[in-house]
Amino acid sequence: MRLVVKIGGSVLDRDISDIARDVRGLRDHGEEVVLVHGGARKVTEVAERMGKKQRFVLSVSGFRSRYTDKETAEIYTMVISGLLNKHIVASLSREGVRSVGLSGIDGFLIKAERKERIKVREGGKVILIDGDYTGKIVEVNRGLLGCLLSAGYVPVIGSVAIGQEGEFLNVDGDRAAASVAGAIGADVLVLLTDVPGVLDGGKLVRMLSRSEARLTVPKLEGGMRRKVFAALEALDAGVKKVFISSGLGPEPITSTLRGKECTVIVNE
Amino acid sequence: MRLVVKIGGSVLDRDISDIARDVRGLRDHGEEVVLVHGGARKVTEVAERMGKKQRFVLSVSGFRSRYTDKETAEIYTMVISGLLNKHIVASLSREGVRSVGLSGIDGFLIKAERKERIKVREGGKVILIDGDYTGKIVEVNRGLLGCLLSAGYVPVIGSVAIGQEGEFLNVDGDRAAASVAGAIGADVLVLLTDVPGVLDGGKLVRMLSRSEARLTVPKLEGGMRRKVFAALEALDAGVKKVFISSGLGPEPITSTLRGKECTVIVNE
Repeated sequence: MRLVVKIGGSVLDRDISDIARDVRGLRDHGEEVVLVHGGARKVTEVAERMGKKQRFVLSVSGFRSRYTDKETAEIYTMVISGLLNKHIVASLSREGVRSVGLSGIDGFLIKAERKERIKVREGGKVILIDGDYTGKIVEVNRGLLGCLLSAGYVPVIGSVAIGQEGEFLNVDGDRAAASVAGAIGADVLVLLTDVPGVLDGGKLVRMLSRSEARLTVPKLEGGMRRKVFAALEALDAGVKKVFISSGLGPEPITSTLRGKECTVIVNE
Repeated sequence: MRLVVKIGGSVLDRDISDIARDVRGLRDHGEEVVLVHGGARKVTEVAERMGKKQRFVLSVSGFRSRYTDKETAEIYTMVISGLLNKHIVASLSREGVRSVGLSGIDGFLIKAERKERIKVREGGKVILIDGDYTGKIVEVNRGLLGCLLSAGYVPVIGSVAIGQEGEFLNVDGDRAAASVAGAIGADVLVLLTDVPGVLDGGKLVRMLSRSEARLTVPKLEGGMRRKVFAALEALDAGVKKVFISSGLGPEPITSTLRGKECTVIVNE
């Protein structure tokens, strides 16, 4: 089985040795694993320590995102692909997993189109902001991932993309994971977060069909809205099942695949 | 031909599109190229901006080095493998070169032994300092580099190593390049810097045999002392020729190989 696992920032802030051990078990059973991660909180922490105040905006489609000017794009790239990515690779190494850390910049792994101008809601009005370095993913280099997987490595991908002019672009980690999963023909995408799944009135939703998920998106807020949206993109790209599950506790991936309480989103 | 090129920090501070174009030409002629880089100045700049003052020490063997406590090791890793490494990969991409950025942490690429305690000279005395995160390179994973070279990629390696406990370690870029060159059986190692080569009384030394180089090391200072030392390590590891040459101007690598004024160090 080929699976892509996205590790959310809320999980990354803690010790990820449970995840590393779980990946080792999966590899020992012959599964092919690709990890994808973001790391928004750490980016904010380092940026503010460098005296670069971060600004967040709400897009017209209802997604909260970081306003990424050129300097923020540099810091974003540096923290995600130089700090968090290497911490994950080191954690995997400690558990004996051979892994290689990459960003979307490496080998044109994640190509994106820069959205230079973004439409945001501010104080009840819609305004346009220039100079943004966020991207819409257009292509994933499956060849590079295939090469590393064949050689027995676990690719660990930080959610930074490369633009047409070689610029660093901020892309959402869940959507990057969905694109990667689609491109390499993954059977399963697991989005690990710090809650058990999609909640409806405080109650966990165990399963959503594609059409149910589509109706659910507008009712959700924040990170979960983005996750279900990414899950739909993954299904559209041919992935069979997407799990949204808690990344905390032992064997978070294996227990999810074995039926732990979480949300699974499937094709009809 | 297989060649390893180390790009010095003084060169990295400028636009490296000349180097990127040169690498493209070499690739077009079928040469296999691996790039190695450090980036000490940028590390200092980011660290100080983060409020982390940097301290430099002089080892008993006469090498000036950064005192790398745990926090500095994190910043060092972040800046080298997340910022400088990705800038080099992006520059290569702009020239159409497919490259993959790595650090020594990825796939255990550069394993090192941590030197927890360093002996330094301070005010005429020799003192011991604890808590350092620098490493002595013990092994290079040639398999990972072979895999990427076979697939047509130019590996770009930031000089960070991984310790036995998965810790991030500061290793010198020139010596990392020498170890990589030895491990992959490179024919040639080119150390690109901001001067034309080894100078003796202001005059360029065009050629040094191994024994001459050994006698020259103690007379040299700073970066050049380290480069000649690294060149000797490369020769010991089986590399045939080491060039110390200027990385400035067009085609810095090709012109060096074709006989530009520089220093070449060869086996007797």
